[in-house]
Amino acid sequence: MSIRVGIYGYGNLGRGVELALKNSPDMTAVGVFTRRNPDSVQTLTGVPVYSVNEMENKKDEIDVMVLCGGSSTDLPQQTPTLAQHFNVVDSFDTHAKIPQHLKNVEAAALPNKKTAIISVGWDPGMFSLARMYSGAILPQGKDYTFWGKGVSQGHSDAIRRIEGVADAKQYTIPVESALQAVRKGENPNLSVREKHTRECFVVAKEGADLARIENEIKTMPNYFADYDTTVHFISQEELNEKHGGLPHGGVVIRSGVTGKNGEHKHVIEYSLKLDSNAEFTASVLVAYARAAYRLNKEGVFGCKTVLDVPPVYLSFEDREDLLAKLL
Amino acid sequence: MSIRVGIYGYGNLGRGVELALKNSPDMTAVGVFTRRNPDSVQTLTGVPVYSVNEMENKKDEIDVMVLCGGSSTDLPQQTPTLAQHFNVVDSFDTHAKIPQHLKNVEAAALPNKKTAIISVGWDPGMFSLARMYSGAILPQGKDYTFWGKGVSQGHSDAIRRIEGVADAKQYTIPVESALQAVRKGENPNLSVREKHTRECFVVAKEGADLARIENEIKTMPNYFADYDTTVHFISQEELNEKHGGLPHGGVVIRSGVTGKNGEHKHVIEYSLKLDSNAEFTASVLVAYARAAYRLNKEGVFGCKTVLDVPPVYLSFEDREDLLAKLL
Repeated sequence: MSIRVGIYGYGNLGRGVELALKNSPDMTAVGVFTRRNPDSVQTLTGVPVYSVNEMENKKDEIDVMVLCGGSSTDLPQQTPTLAQHFNVVDSFDTHAKIPQHLKNVEAAALPNKKTAIISVGWDPGMFSLARMYSGAILPQGKDYTFWGKGVSQGHSDAIRRIEGVADAKQYTIPVESALQAVRKGENPNLSVREKHTRECFVVAKEGADLARIENEIKTMPNYFADYDTTVHFISQEELNEKHGGLPHGGVVIRSGVTGKNGEHKHVIEYSLKLDSNAEFTASVLVAYARAAYRLNKEGVFGCKTVLDVPPVYLSFEDREDLLAKLL
Repeated sequence: MSIRVGIYGYGNLGRGVELALKNSPDMTAVGVFTRRNPDSVQTLTGVPVYSVNEMENKKDEIDVMVLCGGSSTDLPQQTPTLAQHFNVVDSFDTHAKIPQHLKNVEAAALPNKKTAIISVGWDPGMFSLARMYSGAILPQGKDYTFWGKGVSQGHSDAIRRIEGVADAKQYTIPVESALQAVRKGENPNLSVREKHTRECFVVAKEGADLARIENEIKTMPNYFADYDTTVHFISQEELNEKHGGLPHGGVVIRSGVTGKNGEHKHVIEYSLKLDSNAEFTASVLVAYARAAYRLNKEGVFGCKTVLDVPPVYLSFEDREDLLAKLL
């Protein structure tokens, strides 16, 4: 029997989940839930659309709900609320607030015998797993994370809020020499500036003061002031044409030592190069939705994370086949 | 209370386990078990040495036994035998025989309420995990594994068996252009020859026929005939000086697509660069020995693999701390 999946929220991530479900022979998208007027929403593959108000009536028709809202205001509310009624998976990524979110979701899911998996995606998510495994294997070592080359939506939004800016895209780029030093096992101490640069493609409104815009970007606290930042003014056409996608990626490296006196170096590297940040994140969510369903069937309730889930639960293939094929 | 670990077999791997345990604040090496005369064995860190015949008397003093024998003759016998009395971890790596080994160990461990984790290391092991996660996330895609640059002990041994050869070291080397094509997401179909080359450093005995030796190497079925192989004759001194170590490593890449028509490419790469193959494998074994002990405490019995173990069980740190730090 197919695992019946609901999609809660229908932006880039929700659409990615819908598409990922098409590649999952054991799962079916049974509905998209939206705060908009359902009649105004057209899904990519014909999945029916419901108002979020209909959600509770659909409880018996949904095995797992994949939450596709944002981490700032949606998920802190939605995940605990929905975890009372559904097995859920979310991509909550406000790193500092994950422990509190976990507690809230645990309190909602556990008494209702539901299974929740939070903070699923690539960072947090696959990158957390890379750090987990590498750190456990090489306790004497150091972790490095580099993001990019990729589009940071938060930084792009910050530029768009500057007066005189019509549109913008910001790329986060790892500093190649720093990356190489880490890969060689040199264990450098790297400042924020030494790890990443920021490259901005900005469409200015007609008559705007370009020098002021460039200065406002480069001196913006938290976002840009601590980085070497480059600003290019281009036309809207060029932005659309050359910078329309949402690629991203990054690298997690652990550099550690073993031996009687730490004389043997080891470097473990996990890297992602993603054409579509949202679709990749959605694909991770769908694999963990499968796991949430299975854990629930086995009586494992409460709030879990990627660190808690046995890898074999993520695939639609049988354990026996996976063991024969992958080991 | 410290997890009490026994080390069964004391070659390169056993010594690596002994050293890895020194980096594990929650574990103690309580004994090395050897088939040799215990008086003839001196451990690196002063761990006591016992005869394998004393093993059963030590049952109550050992929480997990780490098996450090070879896959061809030792482990197929030893793991099922020891799993009747101990929680065990092994590095059985004869890929084709893993399903049968799993059945044998399951039959020994389960009725005795012991927990076994088999085929732990880097391939099988960490590379299997990389394939597991990537395949579950990107079901539309293709896996590639490249080994090296590193020393293959099996191939080095094969050269040493040739008449006139005094000593030899063989390096397996990935073909850089093939690796780059895979990294770019080109999904090439690669023959054996197109993926790896083999480089051999050979010490010939005095008066040996070098041309014959080179020819015998290059035409050896299975080992070399299907590869582009280079042979260098060098002195024993040069071999000892420049090729004394056992470095290894490799790369697992999954290249997959998402989107309505597979229009978005994604590349997931997991790579290892290891100064000491044996010490890294030993470090993985020790992390899974911890997991075997914990699973057993929770009443999870029988034969498991890296695909079955929740990542959080591998670290000596608390789950709560790990979640706060890694997610």
